[in-house]
Amino acid sequence: MTRVAIYGASGYTGLELLKLLARHPEARVTALLTRQDEAPHLSEIHPQLTGAFDLRLENLSADEVAERADVAFTCLPHAASAEVCADLLSRDMKVVDLSADYRLGDAATYQKWYAHEHPDAGRLGETPYGLPELFRTQIIGAKLVANPGCYPTSAILALAPLLRAGLVERDGIVIDSKSGVSGAGRTPKLPFHYPECNESFSAYGVGTHRHMPEIDRVLSMASDQSVEVLFTPHLTPMDRGILSTIYATPKGDATPESVVTALKEAYAGERFVSIVDTPPATKHVAHTNRCHIYATVVRGKVLLVSVIDNLIKGASGAAVQNFNLICGFDESTALI
Amino acid sequence: MTRVAIYGASGYTGLELLKLLARHPEARVTALLTRQDEAPHLSEIHPQLTGAFDLRLENLSADEVAERADVAFTCLPHAASAEVCADLLSRDMKVVDLSADYRLGDAATYQKWYAHEHPDAGRLGETPYGLPELFRTQIIGAKLVANPGCYPTSAILALAPLLRAGLVERDGIVIDSKSGVSGAGRTPKLPFHYPECNESFSAYGVGTHRHMPEIDRVLSMASDQSVEVLFTPHLTPMDRGILSTIYATPKGDATPESVVTALKEAYAGERFVSIVDTPPATKHVAHTNRCHIYATVVRGKVLLVSVIDNLIKGASGAAVQNFNLICGFDESTALI
Amino acid sequence: MTRVAIYGASGYTGLELLKLLARHPEARVTALLTRQDEAPHLSEIHPQLTGAFDLRLENLSADEVAERADVAFTCLPHAASAEVCADLLSRDMKVVDLSADYRLGDAATYQKWYAHEHPDAGRLGETPYGLPELFRTQIIGAKLVANPGCYPTSAILALAPLLRAGLVERDGIVIDSKSGVSGAGRTPKLPFHYPECNESFSAYGVGTHRHMPEIDRVLSMASDQSVEVLFTPHLTPMDRGILSTIYATPKGDATPESVVTALKEAYAGERFVSIVDTPPATKHVAHTNRCHIYATVVRGKVLLVSVIDNLIKGASGAAVQNFNLICGFDESTALI
Amino acid sequence: MTRVAIYGASGYTGLELLKLLARHPEARVTALLTRQDEAPHLSEIHPQLTGAFDLRLENLSADEVAERADVAFTCLPHAASAEVCADLLSRDMKVVDLSADYRLGDAATYQKWYAHEHPDAGRLGETPYGLPELFRTQIIGAKLVANPGCYPTSAILALAPLLRAGLVERDGIVIDSKSGVSGAGRTPKLPFHYPECNESFSAYGVGTHRHMPEIDRVLSMASDQSVEVLFTPHLTPMDRGILSTIYATPKGDATPESVVTALKEAYAGERFVSIVDTPPATKHVAHTNRCHIYATVVRGKVLLVSVIDNLIKGASGAAVQNFNLICGFDESTALI
Repeated sequence: MTRVAIYGASGYTGLELLKLLARHPEARVTALLTRQDEAPHLSEIHPQLTGAFDLRLENLSADEVAERADVAFTCLPHAASAEVCADLLSRDMKVVDLSADYRLGDAATYQKWYAHEHPDAGRLGETPYGLPELFRTQIIGAKLVANPGCYPTSAILALAPLLRAGLVERDGIVIDSKSGVSGAGRTPKLPFHYPECNESFSAYGVGTHRHMPEIDRVLSMASDQSVEVLFTPHLTPMDRGILSTIYATPKGDATPESVVTALKEAYAGERFVSIVDTPPATKHVAHTNRCHIYATVVRGKVLLVSVIDNLIKGASGAAVQNFNLICGFDESTALI
Repeated sequence: MTRVAIYGASGYTGLELLKLLARHPEARVTALLTRQDEAPHLSEIHPQLTGAFDLRLENLSADEVAERADVAFTCLPHAASAEVCADLLSRDMKVVDLSADYRLGDAATYQKWYAHEHPDAGRLGETPYGLPELFRTQIIGAKLVANPGCYPTSAILALAPLLRAGLVERDGIVIDSKSGVSGAGRTPKLPFHYPECNESFSAYGVGTHRHMPEIDRVLSMASDQSVEVLFTPHLTPMDRGILSTIYATPKGDATPESVVTALKEAYAGERFVSIVDTPPATKHVAHTNRCHIYATVVRGKVLLVSVIDNLIKGASGAAVQNFNLICGFDESTALI
Repeated sequence: MTRVAIYGASGYTGLELLKLLARHPEARVTALLTRQDEAPHLSEIHPQLTGAFDLRLENLSADEVAERADVAFTCLPHAASAEVCADLLSRDMKVVDLSADYRLGDAATYQKWYAHEHPDAGRLGETPYGLPELFRTQIIGAKLVANPGCYPTSAILALAPLLRAGLVERDGIVIDSKSGVSGAGRTPKLPFHYPECNESFSAYGVGTHRHMPEIDRVLSMASDQSVEVLFTPHLTPMDRGILSTIYATPKGDATPESVVTALKEAYAGERFVSIVDTPPATKHVAHTNRCHIYATVVRGKVLLVSVIDNLIKGASGAAVQNFNLICGFDESTALI
Repeated sequence: MTRVAIYGASGYTGLELLKLLARHPEARVTALLTRQDEAPHLSEIHPQLTGAFDLRLENLSADEVAERADVAFTCLPHAASAEVCADLLSRDMKVVDLSADYRLGDAATYQKWYAHEHPDAGRLGETPYGLPELFRTQIIGAKLVANPGCYPTSAILALAPLLRAGLVERDGIVIDSKSGVSGAGRTPKLPFHYPECNESFSAYGVGTHRHMPEIDRVLSMASDQSVEVLFTPHLTPMDRGILSTIYATPKGDATPESVVTALKEAYAGERFVSIVDTPPATKHVAHTNRCHIYATVVRGKVLLVSVIDNLIKGASGAAVQNFNLICGFDESTALI
């Protein structure tokens, strides 16, 4: 039984992670970390977990955590997360980091987009990006995995195979993404106050969202060329789900058939990715670790529609998938 | 043209009030008050009002307000509201108070339920309760009106005529109410954070909600007997609307027909109250100043279902109705 | 491996049942029945199940089903369901019936409320009611189980222990229930068309809902006295979840403490029922087989608030729980 | 007082139209048409209009309508609408047609996209397109106005001034639009059944939506060049609202400042269009006849975000605006 510690269990990714781990036959949660001195019972924080875990949040040192657990999941704000990761890695723990701290390739880019000096810059560029469908061999055996962002997951899974296959131009890619509100986290703020965002749809972070350089980097890495995308996120009045509509310029012999074929070949044998015949809905993949992708060519554009559950394949499900890989379990354990 | 000042324009009742006043041919909004020194433009606070008013929020003294306006609406927290009301009344302004400050009958009850000494206790019991369908004659000509609570409006309109007509017992009344989230106000808090209350229905304030003594008092006053109800509010995942399901013990010759007749007679000629043939939905009255009431007798109970829009008939619409009455305008001006 | 057939897989209870069975280590779904001649793939009916089952719907005879499966779940309309159940039972299959056909005690009551002669009246009154927390010993070893209605589950779990313990009067019980829209099934109708019921809350079936006699019968049976309740259902703008607020007259030494104690004792050791300290929300039990109950005494009433997921503990989760019991598996297999 | 007839009053555009006309001081609704022989009262069809109109739906001939009314609004399915329009125009009535029948320029394009021969092809290309902000002079004095589609309104208002000003290329324009569910009409169908589309976001009509040629035609017409756009609609879990995110290739001296300036100049003096500083939300314009547009240049694209209420500025509000123009009333009468 692998012993698991979770930093930042009180948010939505923490909640979903705990729900998944409750079904995991090889994992036992042994520590829930908080930086506060109160030690509320987990069921006070998440009434949804009543009866599932008899655990309290605790303020433990890295040494104490290392004694108590083999693997840690870190669901902390950026910068704070990297500090904890470095501490745990030096104590020989394995870590799946759900923050953005190890997703970018270099300290300068991190500094530019996160307005913060990276606390563990040496591991930037060395840490595998936790999208097993693209980087599985690097993840297996790693001590630290950078769990992908939710928007990037939806976009990269759809685009990477077509960039690799030379079916879309690397320039002029537009990613128009729509997310449920849980993506904004659990801290109450006016834009996410129910009567503000309910019955409303809005664009935000136009040209400035931090997932844009992450997508740039990973698509570039996955296709061995320099890719720069225009990414626009939108807030959708629903709890969970991301749909990305992607517009790219066709290249080579891109046809509706060839783009579908390229995607099907790329994901043949992948349990969590399906290429579908009709434009999908986020509900088709809600509460699952799956990604459904639709592809066509229309009016001079390759048009892709990709859906995931932002909290599962876009966060905690991917984290469990990475956990399974670094621990040597079947990759789909506890996932559907 | 009557000049109007609004205290607390940045919340939801303020927003709805401004939307209604934008259509009012006899009212001109001349001051929006804030206690902060910044003076944001109204359209920054409420983008919904872009183009409707060219006004900034201002931090003005009572003297300045009295020079600038004839009537004030106060949408402030309790206690704070009464202080402002007293100041304005002493300057000969008329006031419609949307807070709870003048709804109860005596200082002791106020102290008990609001945990605060009443700042203007002399006016308690003297101030008309702004439900024109029941207390119109008292409202006309008043300088101050206590605008009713949202839950009380839905319950009192349904129950008062039956209590008066001797068709229900004064004991054992159960009011099970369901409200949209705007009733909780505009301040972000965890229970009203979108992913917490969306797709969820909950009970709250069981046995402790401050609208309970308000209902007790007004039903007692309206029916000349001591009434004490059991009121349970619930939070519903929608922006606006209240539905109250009410269970009372039949008395006298209460039948499905006689209770309907009593209600129809009570509200004959009332423009904003209809007795309907089938159980209503909150959407039937959304964005209107109307109340729809369904009544029957089933399995030994008089069963009533009453719906209003909590922000209109339950707050700002009633406030405009009261404003019309105290200013001598047609009662339904600017209302539908 | 137990082979499972499902009648009526295309609705919401069918979908949830399949999701649960996908995680069941002892069950293999071998037949999905339809009365139509087309044989769509399951993933066309439920894109949510893409990749989970490679099955088509089929129009098979009872003999064919009996060859292919050991146990059947019937998610059919009433009357149609009993016909199928009788056919399968005569072929020695075990059946969990999710329809209402075997929930009532006698043919006359069935005829009165369902306006249909019962096709298999001999089994009425003989079939165990599938609420294991109350009737486990009768369910174990049964060939046929009447899976409970969703509203009744929420109400009966809260009330039965207090009626048994003599803490509430059997007269005057009011059950005010609120359900998500999935309870209305998957057939498109105007009241469940999105723009009709979204952002709206309504009462329906006042005094006429078929779950009322079911609650009467089961509470009477569970407490050895004649109980008749007043049950009012409401439609809530959310996918799933039921919250029942229950008002009963205290009896004997009913206090806030004694009612809580009676409930805790009744459900000590029950994995799926918790007595909670604060009024619960439906989201606390969404996607689980759990029921959370809050109890107090206020203003002369015992007040209970009970929440379940109507599709899980109120339908398919209970069905799997019953399946586990009649097949001899651990009762909580595949359930959380 | 202008007498008004409405064809197709039972849908959502009919409902909103009636709500607006209830506030119109110069209009009196005198006939509501249906093709069925039953004559339900309007409040049975729309409980929201209880007390507002005492009218029944009627099955009247064109002659009878022409006697009873001066102007008609037609909210009928395409093809059916043109037949009625021709009948009424020949009887010297004025008509605002809310269907798509007169929006395209020629019979062949209509036949191609609507799979139907046009019943009144002679008026194609002659009928003014009812977007007063662009075609006001043509609308004033017209007998027939083609009321614009909802998606086209949101896209055309944002793009037309920039195409005219030579700030965006006419090729490669991508319009990614998101609409609330009321846009799909009031006929119950599975995709709009509450539990199907609630908590879900989906793309549909990819490359095939009939609003695409409408946008092509009107943008070409408004900018005197041939424009062909790629338009992708999406279904959003909310009642009302459209947000279009538009990506176009900059041309000439397009900068963030110059595109904003061009838009501000184009709509200077327009009451219902505002250029805003931050990306807008659909809720900012809900229940109003307004359009808010945000514009910038980012990563090599002119990026526009445009929001309207699909039922008001996208349908019934625009219809009243056109009605006001053809009848000679103040253009904003009854509109906010």
